[in-house]
Amino acid sequence: MPEFLTVTDADFEARFAALLGMKREEAEDVDAAVAAILADVRARGDAAVLELTARYDRLTLDAAGMAFSPAEIAAEIAKVSAEDRAALELAAERIRAYHARQRPEDASWVDAAGARLGWRWTPVSAAGLYVPGGLASYPSSVLMNAIPAKVAGVGRLVVTCPTPGGVVNPLVLLAAQISGVDEIYRIGGAQAIAALAYGTETIAPVDKITGPGNAYVAAAKRRVFGRVGIDMIAGPSEILVIADAGNDPDWIALDLLSQAEHDQSAQALLITTDAALGRAVAEAVVRRLETLERREIAGASWRDNGAVIVVETLAQAAALANRIAPEHLEIMVEDAEALADAIPHAGAIFLGPWTPEAIGDYVGGPNHVLPTARSARFSSGLNVLDFMKRTTMARMTPEALKAIGPSAERLAISESLEAHGLSVRARLDRLNG
Amino acid sequence: MPEFLTVTDADFEARFAALLGMKREEAEDVDAAVAAILADVRARGDAAVLELTARYDRLTLDAAGMAFSPAEIAAEIAKVSAEDRAALELAAERIRAYHARQRPEDASWVDAAGARLGWRWTPVSAAGLYVPGGLASYPSSVLMNAIPAKVAGVGRLVVTCPTPGGVVNPLVLLAAQISGVDEIYRIGGAQAIAALAYGTETIAPVDKITGPGNAYVAAAKRRVFGRVGIDMIAGPSEILVIADAGNDPDWIALDLLSQAEHDQSAQALLITTDAALGRAVAEAVVRRLETLERREIAGASWRDNGAVIVVETLAQAAALANRIAPEHLEIMVEDAEALADAIPHAGAIFLGPWTPEAIGDYVGGPNHVLPTARSARFSSGLNVLDFMKRTTMARMTPEALKAIGPSAERLAISESLEAHGLSVRARLDRLNG
Repeated sequence: MPEFLTVTDADFEARFAALLGMKREEAEDVDAAVAAILADVRARGDAAVLELTARYDRLTLDAAGMAFSPAEIAAEIAKVSAEDRAALELAAERIRAYHARQRPEDASWVDAAGARLGWRWTPVSAAGLYVPGGLASYPSSVLMNAIPAKVAGVGRLVVTCPTPGGVVNPLVLLAAQISGVDEIYRIGGAQAIAALAYGTETIAPVDKITGPGNAYVAAAKRRVFGRVGIDMIAGPSEILVIADAGNDPDWIALDLLSQAEHDQSAQALLITTDAALGRAVAEAVVRRLETLERREIAGASWRDNGAVIVVETLAQAAALANRIAPEHLEIMVEDAEALADAIPHAGAIFLGPWTPEAIGDYVGGPNHVLPTARSARFSSGLNVLDFMKRTTMARMTPEALKAIGPSAERLAISESLEAHGLSVRARLDRLNG
Repeated sequence: MPEFLTVTDADFEARFAALLGMKREEAEDVDAAVAAILADVRARGDAAVLELTARYDRLTLDAAGMAFSPAEIAAEIAKVSAEDRAALELAAERIRAYHARQRPEDASWVDAAGARLGWRWTPVSAAGLYVPGGLASYPSSVLMNAIPAKVAGVGRLVVTCPTPGGVVNPLVLLAAQISGVDEIYRIGGAQAIAALAYGTETIAPVDKITGPGNAYVAAAKRRVFGRVGIDMIAGPSEILVIADAGNDPDWIALDLLSQAEHDQSAQALLITTDAALGRAVAEAVVRRLETLERREIAGASWRDNGAVIVVETLAQAAALANRIAPEHLEIMVEDAEALADAIPHAGAIFLGPWTPEAIGDYVGGPNHVLPTARSARFSSGLNVLDFMKRTTMARMTPEALKAIGPSAERLAISESLEAHGLSVRARLDRLNG
């Protein structure tokens, strides 16, 4: 059974703090192995990637075989049913429409001193998307990473996806095609991150790498950060449901289980003002676990990391939610919008009983790559700006330089940066002389 | 003498590539020492910070003395001249006005399926700003880090600034006061980053840490990344000037030297269509170096890392500039705006002969914390969004769920995530039943 906490319990704060501080992920120490792989690929390029792919993915390739050819892609995609294709296309269309609204605006204005100021947004030239192989090879994640990049205007979008034993998920290839991916390589692990960051004879380097992966991939991304941009380092998935009386316990149980089934390390939490609902949800989870395909994983997650927290007021619920800073937040209370306003720290918010989090995983439109492990306190889900950068622009006129230049000169002198000051002074002297 | 390259030279590509790949920074291996400091502060809090401050900064404090008191701040600030104060206030006002325009908009709309979608921006609750001590303790950097945070709406803004031997720069305290900083601590190094990330008895933890620092600070920021947000890891400063014939060689020389004087590792580059201008600039640099206060540093930077590159066309200049992806780019050609349009990869662009880069360091308005080491390919200068995060919002109606829910269910099944599908199905069944 998961934790059952009530805010009036004497030991509530200690138990809640323990829940918050819980280390759900084994930090596998793969850093030394990853450093060696990165150095090897950097030094030997394709040859190293091919050897590592043979070793870890039991797949013998030559350099020409690293990329899926158009014919291979077409042959795999032909296996997809019309219904699956239609669902993927609906999802892509909705994700594209949502993210299109995130395109930022350039700005340019002349201020009172006569200076023209502004900024300009431009896309990164090339981005790499890591797609895990095997069970966690999700076509929806391809859409969620690739579409924002394409909306941003990324010119070259590369997917790497390991195919252990040569097996690939046709839906992943279809999702890549629908999203406008330009190149797809059958490689994975730290060697794929190295190939994307440093380039090889066959794979040109990219500027930004996104996408989830195992401990090797995460360690490799952390190491190449700076040489290329990376997205967040994703941790296990989380959901927090806040519900008042009158909700269907079975719906909430399924929403909790839809996070719990991802991973034994996932965390599903319920905060409710109604203790009876809390108990009913816990019972419904047990019932649903009896038949759920992934009952082993989901059951372990719920047992080890799950909790039902009973509060007296929604203000208490908001305060706890802000401390949790959940990746996914479902709000199923009478005035869900008002409660959402009181919870700034959350990755994605799902309002009302008709918005199960699974909608957001696939077809809602918002991104499902979201900040985990309390990082919603300071970071955002994947979005179009992650594939763009802002350049600031300034143009002084002689008049503007006369107005503000002397202050720049003064500050430069106060910081003992003489050449800074002289670069302004030389121009002012021309104007005054 | 620095490199003098001409695009028509037979060995141009090799020499330019060498310039680009030049490793200007010694990667000091401080990672093990930093890991120990982080662990120590995490375990022992104030006591560890105080011991490390005594050891590294020759400063004996007790916990109560870590923060500057209001009286201490007032006493230091009283030493600032009226002229310096006025210059700092002008800078602050202009930086505030520029960054105020970066405040992002929330969005909310109802789409064709009847789903209400949108997003919301909120500030991080608390941010920490690292300010180096000693020579590189720049009041302008306090403004450039603190003002965007305050414009974003950060509730609590903390500065840490080491004061070796107890010496502090009064202008740094004044800049902090003008920017609305809430707490200032006399601590530095990896121990300050640890205190900000983990908190101590005296210093509450923050959610985001920004600001430049030495190798220890950089390694500490890299290690706490994930637990808190960080800004970029800054490398040595760079400037690229693109100029055509008819520019004043002395102005360009001073602009190049104003980067070179920062640091021996800084890089100052000129690309010009006019070989005579290139030679004249090189001569002007030599002349200016004769008397410049920081001639040792600036001279070494120019000699070791500087270059004059002569091209035949501005299109060639743009292509090289994009490969350099400079932190600072000055464009002094007839149609500077047109050339800027051809150079997407730059941190900040300064247009025309009346816009020396030093204006941008102090009073222009745009931020001077900018991406170095070619990272302008994928990242932006510090800005208001660095202190905010976006939460996506979704609310389905029963009709919207009927329209798009079946596709979500289908994709969930294709990914073998049964509970995801059931959480949608249970609701659809209610609607259909």
